[in-house]
Amino acid sequence: MKRFFEPLAAFEPGWVWLVGAGPGDPGLLSLYGAHAIQQADVIVYDALVTEDILGFAGPGVELRYAGKRGGKPSPSQRDISETLVELAREDKRVLRLKGGDPFVFGRGGEEALALVEAGVPFRVVPGITAGIGGLAYAGIAATHRDINHAIAFVTGHDASGAVPDTVDWAALSKGSPVLVVYMAMKHWPTIRERLIAAGRPAGEPVAFVCEATTAGQQVLETTLAASLEDLAESAIKPPAIVVVGGSVRLRAGLDWLGAMAGRTLTADPLAGVKR
Amino acid sequence: MKRFFEPLAAFEPGWVWLVGAGPGDPGLLSLYGAHAIQQADVIVYDALVTEDILGFAGPGVELRYAGKRGGKPSPSQRDISETLVELAREDKRVLRLKGGDPFVFGRGGEEALALVEAGVPFRVVPGITAGIGGLAYAGIAATHRDINHAIAFVTGHDASGAVPDTVDWAALSKGSPVLVVYMAMKHWPTIRERLIAAGRPAGEPVAFVCEATTAGQQVLETTLAASLEDLAESAIKPPAIVVVGGSVRLRAGLDWLGAMAGRTLTADPLAGVKR
Repeated sequence: MKRFFEPLAAFEPGWVWLVGAGPGDPGLLSLYGAHAIQQADVIVYDALVTEDILGFAGPGVELRYAGKRGGKPSPSQRDISETLVELAREDKRVLRLKGGDPFVFGRGGEEALALVEAGVPFRVVPGITAGIGGLAYAGIAATHRDINHAIAFVTGHDASGAVPDTVDWAALSKGSPVLVVYMAMKHWPTIRERLIAAGRPAGEPVAFVCEATTAGQQVLETTLAASLEDLAESAIKPPAIVVVGGSVRLRAGLDWLGAMAGRTLTADPLAGVKR
Repeated sequence: MKRFFEPLAAFEPGWVWLVGAGPGDPGLLSLYGAHAIQQADVIVYDALVTEDILGFAGPGVELRYAGKRGGKPSPSQRDISETLVELAREDKRVLRLKGGDPFVFGRGGEEALALVEAGVPFRVVPGITAGIGGLAYAGIAATHRDINHAIAFVTGHDASGAVPDTVDWAALSKGSPVLVVYMAMKHWPTIRERLIAAGRPAGEPVAFVCEATTAGQQVLETTLAASLEDLAESAIKPPAIVVVGGSVRLRAGLDWLGAMAGRTLTADPLAGVKR
């Protein structure tokens, strides 16, 4: 029996590892992520990295927060990249720890290119993205052959904070039976309107999943039509993932976390639905 | 400092855990996945689960192969589900280990619903999907704000083995600047034609990534126009992920595995490209 960390590359001084911490549950961290936390000299982490995961860090590690704090704006991407370069030049093992996956709406690509520009060597360690793993903890399968052979992930706001104007919501709505929207809460009224204008039925199921995979996870099941009202009456708050499409119905059968708390699941959650 | 497996739930006898093993690199297995391998009585695994990962299993674990073998067809989904139910009823800790993520074109939802029908309790452990983590090992970021605010994942064949006729390739092509096609090799000539018919430029970059994240990983960079010829001359073989879109250009800057082998990266891989 091999030991878990035995096959993994060592974290060399002067390197930056861009690591996805996954959606929140410490059990969803990768072995590489855990290995990196054990070896890092400094961890530069985002708001989406949970305390449970930072709790794995040893007492000798320097923790640097790179998210928003107390209403102040978050450090600019340039500042974060400069910090990573400086720390690497001090010959430290620099762990850049991001929620989810660093390359899924995480700007990891930009950070990596800044390292290339500075000549700093790096490794990328993917993570489980909330749009897949977070949904699984809500009992929603990203794909199911009776529902979708395609799934699209889209961000609810771009770098300027607005709904991205490069997204063709109409085509995306038509092409993908299931849509997963990241960072969707701020602009949900606009996004919802665009989806309805694109022909998605008002009665189509929608789920909001906030603090996915953590003890604070909350799920709101609603429809496009009812979502504004239901959201206002709910305790759902950012960060949340929104999923639009028939997959939401699977939750009646696949809500395994709910089942642990006593929910009775159905083996045919799509019964009575036109397939 | 917390120990890595301390916060995780115990694997109880009579339960089935549906676990995603990730794309191949054992370092991309989750802590929960490793925890499950340590505790399982029996592991029912797919063709896509690498030997490196099965190597973590202890000598007392029963390993059951549930993929294709020697040209024979793979066991039916019904057979696999029945096996899981039977083993759980023998009060075993049953680990159903699947490549990638169990809910991303993995039929994990169907297996879970069969467990619900039989009254067998289960947990879902997401994994890193090849369409994100495999691309990252090829130096391709799933998203980059200069390229795409949306990404679509689509399967190249449905349950019958044909190109899925429920996929609106034209709308998907129009709506998503980057397309990641799973199991695309068999029907690539057809899919390529549909993408070109949908208006994707013949010169658009395409990458094939096979055996992603393993020592055997191979990447072919080509274009829609040249892909048939280049593929025929390459050593790329299934299983492979195909990515279509400008993200492929990022590889010139983000191919960190290549850099370890001596490749010189550029900090501006999108230079000269219309954004």
